[in-house]
Amino acid sequence: MNTYIKLIEQKLATFDFGDRPSELYEPIRYILSLGGKRLRPVLTLMSCQLFDDQYEKALYPALGVEVFHNFTLLHDDIMDKAPIRRGKQTVHEKWNANIAILSGDVMLIRANDLFLKTDQFDIGKILSKFNTCAAEVCEGQQYDMNFETRYSVSETEYLEMIKLKTAVLLGFSIELGAMIGGAEERICNQLYDFGINIGLGFQLKDDLLDVYADSAEFGKQLGGDIISNKKTYLLIKAIELANGQEKEELNHWLTEKDFDQQEKVNAVTDIYNKLGIKALSEKKMNSYFDKGLEILETLDIDTQRKHPLKELVVKLIDREK
Amino acid sequence: MNTYIKLIEQKLATFDFGDRPSELYEPIRYILSLGGKRLRPVLTLMSCQLFDDQYEKALYPALGVEVFHNFTLLHDDIMDKAPIRRGKQTVHEKWNANIAILSGDVMLIRANDLFLKTDQFDIGKILSKFNTCAAEVCEGQQYDMNFETRYSVSETEYLEMIKLKTAVLLGFSIELGAMIGGAEERICNQLYDFGINIGLGFQLKDDLLDVYADSAEFGKQLGGDIISNKKTYLLIKAIELANGQEKEELNHWLTEKDFDQQEKVNAVTDIYNKLGIKALSEKKMNSYFDKGLEILETLDIDTQRKHPLKELVVKLIDREK
Repeated sequence: MNTYIKLIEQKLATFDFGDRPSELYEPIRYILSLGGKRLRPVLTLMSCQLFDDQYEKALYPALGVEVFHNFTLLHDDIMDKAPIRRGKQTVHEKWNANIAILSGDVMLIRANDLFLKTDQFDIGKILSKFNTCAAEVCEGQQYDMNFETRYSVSETEYLEMIKLKTAVLLGFSIELGAMIGGAEERICNQLYDFGINIGLGFQLKDDLLDVYADSAEFGKQLGGDIISNKKTYLLIKAIELANGQEKEELNHWLTEKDFDQQEKVNAVTDIYNKLGIKALSEKKMNSYFDKGLEILETLDIDTQRKHPLKELVVKLIDREK
Repeated sequence: MNTYIKLIEQKLATFDFGDRPSELYEPIRYILSLGGKRLRPVLTLMSCQLFDDQYEKALYPALGVEVFHNFTLLHDDIMDKAPIRRGKQTVHEKWNANIAILSGDVMLIRANDLFLKTDQFDIGKILSKFNTCAAEVCEGQQYDMNFETRYSVSETEYLEMIKLKTAVLLGFSIELGAMIGGAEERICNQLYDFGINIGLGFQLKDDLLDVYADSAEFGKQLGGDIISNKKTYLLIKAIELANGQEKEELNHWLTEKDFDQQEKVNAVTDIYNKLGIKALSEKKMNSYFDKGLEILETLDIDTQRKHPLKELVVKLIDREK
């Protein structure tokens, strides 16, 4: 795991994204320097390594995925008016919205360019899959914004949204590594499905951590989603299951404009606890992770080679931030 | 000319950009339906036709250029807070800025995808050139924004900015058609230079029309650039050449916050007239168009085949809007 991350961080820190005008390229270096799990490029390298010991051949495309992911964060932060990302000012706060729009655009362009830096024979196929995935991520973001102004979102709608916004990019990251590693199409497709399931589990874990993380390890305030009425899996299930007094209370907190933040977090968490939302969400989350691991298990690849990916999934399940 | 445009309009109107969520895809269909000269895709088709009668093979990539161009308009309009584009509401006005950012992002993705729809053997090379060009267009836009808050911009800086913001995409549009038409690299490069020169002439014509167009044919208010102190070639030359009373007057209009728009347009136009700015700008403009035509002339291609491109350049020189 650390070997992969080291390789990615080192290449990312030294890659020449451009220089002038500085207003355009400094924000790119800035957001990429804020760190993060580097989950997506790690998945690409691990997936390539399933088929080829020379997994460094997937390094530039892996960076392409990471640059694309950070482009979506940059533009999402403008749309969400988020002041902070990974404990630091967001780009539109540190510079301004115009610079954030334009440097984001350049990141999308550079991401595309990084995919070209491979000797994989069928670059058209890789890019076609990337374009489909990239548009789906935008669709997911639009649905997420649409959901903000709706009181009721169904479980199916929510799962479709997080599939688009989060899971398809994890699926593509893994498929990409496999394609560059020379895997046959059937296996690439299976690994894509593995990634989709891991991605859905990953997002449900995110929803859970926001409420139930160990606050010392989590590193940010608990209950941010509760405060902003974010339509998470937890809230959607709670709205679905609440009755009588709990329903009334939940409605109160969802519509009340003037409230004490900690009081709202405590009250809504209490309702979640009474309704057994944590166990329900964990069950759903585990079903996706299990499905993903099952797909990985059935793949006709040497068990030893699967080890890093398996270990990574376990880390994602157990993560505390 | 009309044959090319008809082909482009028809394909553009029926192409499936996507459907759901409608907030994402309606703005794309909307901005592409507002028309425009379709200059860039026409250049791609004409350039392909220099080498191959089956120029329709360049149609999808030509649309890619047009979709990319409209993506830049969409995002530029957000940054410039422009309320109107081609006589209609801009996307961020008709919807909102978030939708404009995100549907613009999808346009950039779809543009990339359109370039894949060709059987040209070296798609990696085409995309690499496109990525370089696309980043340069963003750099040009950033310089243009930077210039807004500066009093003095040199002629060299201005010409570099319009080269990036406008000319390189015309250069790429033409090179793209030649590449798909199977032209050898040396000739592709020459056609790129042809496009750069035509693009620089094209932008200088734009600057001129804003002040000196026949207002009935122009279709929009004259002097918009003067009102907003836009650093055009005309203004930069005027600042450079003005002395004594003209310099004082020009400074007055550039710094005065509270003014009658028509009075400012008349006054600055008077200064331009006294300094001979129109003739100077036309001379510069013609030098680029001449250079472009000269490159076209020296190309070892049948004269008959060059006819549509030549005719198009003459139209660009003589255009009144």
